[in-house]
Amino acid sequence: MIARHLAPLAGDGALGLTDDAAIITPPPGRELVITADAMVAGVHYLPDELPENIARKLLRVNLSDIAAMGAEPLYYLLTLSAPRGLPDSWFAGFAAGLAADQARYGVTLLGGDTTSTPGPVTLSVTMFGHVAPGTALRRSGARPGDDLWVTGTVGDGVLGLLALRDSLPDPDGSLARQYRFPEPRLGLALNAIAHAAMDISDGLVQDAGHMARASNVALTLEIAGVPLSDAGRAAGPDFVSSGVAGGDDYELLLAVPPENEPLLRASAAQAAIQITRIGRFTQGPPAVHGVAPDGTPIPLGGKGWSHF
Amino acid sequence: MIARHLAPLAGDGALGLTDDAAIITPPPGRELVITADAMVAGVHYLPDELPENIARKLLRVNLSDIAAMGAEPLYYLLTLSAPRGLPDSWFAGFAAGLAADQARYGVTLLGGDTTSTPGPVTLSVTMFGHVAPGTALRRSGARPGDDLWVTGTVGDGVLGLLALRDSLPDPDGSLARQYRFPEPRLGLALNAIAHAAMDISDGLVQDAGHMARASNVALTLEIAGVPLSDAGRAAGPDFVSSGVAGGDDYELLLAVPPENEPLLRASAAQAAIQITRIGRFTQGPPAVHGVAPDGTPIPLGGKGWSHF
Repeated sequence: MIARHLAPLAGDGALGLTDDAAIITPPPGRELVITADAMVAGVHYLPDELPENIARKLLRVNLSDIAAMGAEPLYYLLTLSAPRGLPDSWFAGFAAGLAADQARYGVTLLGGDTTSTPGPVTLSVTMFGHVAPGTALRRSGARPGDDLWVTGTVGDGVLGLLALRDSLPDPDGSLARQYRFPEPRLGLALNAIAHAAMDISDGLVQDAGHMARASNVALTLEIAGVPLSDAGRAAGPDFVSSGVAGGDDYELLLAVPPENEPLLRASAAQAAIQITRIGRFTQGPPAVHGVAPDGTPIPLGGKGWSHF
Repeated sequence: MIARHLAPLAGDGALGLTDDAAIITPPPGRELVITADAMVAGVHYLPDELPENIARKLLRVNLSDIAAMGAEPLYYLLTLSAPRGLPDSWFAGFAAGLAADQARYGVTLLGGDTTSTPGPVTLSVTMFGHVAPGTALRRSGARPGDDLWVTGTVGDGVLGLLALRDSLPDPDGSLARQYRFPEPRLGLALNAIAHAAMDISDGLVQDAGHMARASNVALTLEIAGVPLSDAGRAAGPDFVSSGVAGGDDYELLLAVPPENEPLLRASAAQAAIQITRIGRFTQGPPAVHGVAPDGTPIPLGGKGWSHF
């Protein structure tokens, strides 16, 4: 299986996946940014999902963490625990999905492990990126006066899952696509622009709260300003404030000082990524305060989203 | 759980395990060696194993791969998929086991992910080590004329598992200890001594075959010379040649030119690691040929060992 399906995905340093370990020399003068995310069949994706799609989402959720640090992706290790009897065609499809997104994002396979399991397919990726020393973006850098920006539209991941479960119409399949193939927001050159960044995986309200707490600042979140797709707008007036919107979206939250807005807009335009200002950080105890356009407080649900 | 049990294990670059990724600067002028191994409850360890012991074996099997490359260990990432309802005491014990072996081997936790699973506990570690550029030891470097050496004694891992299953007497518990706590053979300074190295996890005969094939050389394996414990000697005359001995041992196989034997002996003495010459590589089609002391061929079983 490894020789047939995975070895063709191996890049420099992987030693053809035949040795005890991989050997890498990081790009000269760069720091490495490293993240790991696991996915379990029936927890992070529907049990009957196509293996191609599982592979692509697995890479993308990890690439999103690299993007959230303002880093550029390099390579990844994979461990795969699979039930005995999973057909060869599953592995072929899984490898095809990896190959497609390796080409799309410029990463290669560095190594890993495959084992059997009496349980569901369980996948783990360790993804590597690189940044100029000292420039990686953390969650904790937001300062009073910074604006909060978000990429793309918020909430389509959750709606896509409902669509996949036939709980929501999705005539052109765009919602399902959004859930299956979140777009890691690489290429924004954020390091000189933002004070803090993170990706949204739990839900907009919850993750905005994580940034506020990590930075020890208050955040005013302008609920009506949160960018939604048509489906998001149709999801009801409480879609954003309930805390559900944003789960499994993998858009970026950015804390940007107002004077850097022109740089942010230029970078987003170059990368063809939509950006929207949705709030402002202020001095105060760390908390997220929802407000309407007229300044009226809007209560926020903190439940967030933990897959399905 | 992360804040309580795992954050105290985090080292430099882990950002307290609270950010999207870790940030590292490899030691200046060194290459990184990176390996990943997964373990599944009921496949790689007995389902009722103590969490302390699971954690320690998980680190050690990964550290063994670092040792097999002639590298020094640095840090690791961990992904942990656990059934809902696993008690807090399990995580406390697991973290205590990690802490014990972190201190023993000088590694720290860099990051990772925790998820739920409807299946068994599934663990994955990505372990990092460092070496001088170009000096990492591969499996493929054995040359005709090199001797094959092995560390420690061979076969106690498999016998330890039998002991744990009450299929073998183990009055002082030493066999069970060997299975639970394999000793990664770090500290041998092999890079200037050996042409090739790998750790034995599948079985001595099978892994010796992997080295012969990767190096495209033949190997004469002197079966009577393979170092065994008392229990190994008691396991019968075919214990080594059957191919079972050596599974889950994590001893090192080393291809060493005869002129480096004094260096090897000095290094092993300094590290207090037993080493034994058990064969010689020769020109010829890649294969392992078992021989008795009088030169008579001994047929080898290639079955090896795939956990239990």
